[in-house]
Amino acid sequence: MIVWNGEGDKPERLAETVFWVPQVEDSTNLAAKFQAMPKLEVTQLTSAGVEDILEFVPNGVTLCTARGVHGSAVAELVMTVILATLRRLPHFVEAQRQGNWEPLEADDLRDKRVLIIGAGDLGEQTARRLRSFDADPVLVAHTARDGIHATSELPSLLPEADVVVLTVPLTPDTTNLVDAEFLGRMPDGAVLVNVARGKVVDTAALLAELTTGRLRAALDVMEPEPLPAGHPLWKAPNLIITPHAAGSISQAGARAFALVNAQVRRYLAGEDLVNVVKGAY
Amino acid sequence: MIVWNGEGDKPERLAETVFWVPQVEDSTNLAAKFQAMPKLEVTQLTSAGVEDILEFVPNGVTLCTARGVHGSAVAELVMTVILATLRRLPHFVEAQRQGNWEPLEADDLRDKRVLIIGAGDLGEQTARRLRSFDADPVLVAHTARDGIHATSELPSLLPEADVVVLTVPLTPDTTNLVDAEFLGRMPDGAVLVNVARGKVVDTAALLAELTTGRLRAALDVMEPEPLPAGHPLWKAPNLIITPHAAGSISQAGARAFALVNAQVRRYLAGEDLVNVVKGAY
Repeated sequence: MIVWNGEGDKPERLAETVFWVPQVEDSTNLAAKFQAMPKLEVTQLTSAGVEDILEFVPNGVTLCTARGVHGSAVAELVMTVILATLRRLPHFVEAQRQGNWEPLEADDLRDKRVLIIGAGDLGEQTARRLRSFDADPVLVAHTARDGIHATSELPSLLPEADVVVLTVPLTPDTTNLVDAEFLGRMPDGAVLVNVARGKVVDTAALLAELTTGRLRAALDVMEPEPLPAGHPLWKAPNLIITPHAAGSISQAGARAFALVNAQVRRYLAGEDLVNVVKGAY
Repeated sequence: MIVWNGEGDKPERLAETVFWVPQVEDSTNLAAKFQAMPKLEVTQLTSAGVEDILEFVPNGVTLCTARGVHGSAVAELVMTVILATLRRLPHFVEAQRQGNWEPLEADDLRDKRVLIIGAGDLGEQTARRLRSFDADPVLVAHTARDGIHATSELPSLLPEADVVVLTVPLTPDTTNLVDAEFLGRMPDGAVLVNVARGKVVDTAALLAELTTGRLRAALDVMEPEPLPAGHPLWKAPNLIITPHAAGSISQAGARAFALVNAQVRRYLAGEDLVNVVKGAY
């Protein structure tokens, strides 16, 4: 068993690879890369999303995600931007930049109804943090289960939401899920938070609601991404933009490595892997 | 029993007052005001701090605070500025203002040791929220009790702290508690959060640590306050300034009114009052 550490001749080693941990620089030409690894048994991602790789994974190869590794970091960013929006932090940051003492009455999070669309690890982690603020998280998933509402109930749930958090994977069902009709059901002043994928939201429809000042938002992902210079979203009011930063924390590498390490150990010991998305190794 | 609603002739009514709820505009000439209310039995504050009024309250008059009413709003602001600092939100807000996509690796709150100096309602509410982020809150009070450290242990606690939160009342003991020596014991990159009173921190000593870039801070209270135009704190790096905004939320009035209402009902029914700081009504 050779564990390639990134040094030496990579292409030759590819033919021998049985367990692959794709890095950021591996995200292109995936079909050719998989073809170059005929002995591959397991692909272990260091991210939670699979939509860029799933279609290329050959039959017989097990695909595992890093579910659980990044959930806390993303849930933290959700809480950061919800609190910053309600407590008007961008206003205070701008007043500070100008050297002005500008008090302002803000909202608070206590007692707020927060709709979390996507009831996976990230949704659950966000809900746990919200409860500690005495806020009221309501989880929504594709199909209803114990304590979790179905997306079909959204028309009646959205008008009661102070905050809506998107944590869904990108699928045909969730593409443009948040369109003009969805946004129109949100009450005045409500806050949309997207840490899912940019294509879940119709950017033009959101921009219209922000521009009139009716809704507020925080986008960590958006369409297009990176947001190009001069795009109207940059100047939209009541919006916090973070540049796909939810997972960009200094501990992310160490936490992902701990998972990879544990999975390699399981693989070598012939044990069941965790976070299996495809295959049944 | 007359409940004065703010209309009509206030001075005449003062002589009859038995239960007083001072408003913001009552904060001056307190000695004369108490003298004008010889029948006064209870003073019910709508804030948690007593340091501006305590010395003026005549013997025999019960003084009650609004402990518990504002704790959640202040704990929220503590969480907002800790998260904003660690997750580098001011950087992203500034990049957004300039229309630039500028990713940056940040810290996260998970596993961070947070020293909370002041173990009252606010300290406990902050600790509860921190635990939901899998951070490690450590409470410190004047004297040690179950699960709470004594301020005398600070010299050994400070070097292990990633974040230090000040929630103490202003007393002779806490005035300038955070001086150059205190700050010097905090590790590189640690974050000081002050939601107590400005005089708890030696501003010049903090400014020195911020200017070298060794420490980070978030100040909701500061000395002097309001911070005057041109004060060097405005331009200090790694600092978030909020203008004594921790309690300035739209729900604050309704929550304080609910407490006042309950206390007046207790008073009329001859029941024990809550939040009694002085007297034993």
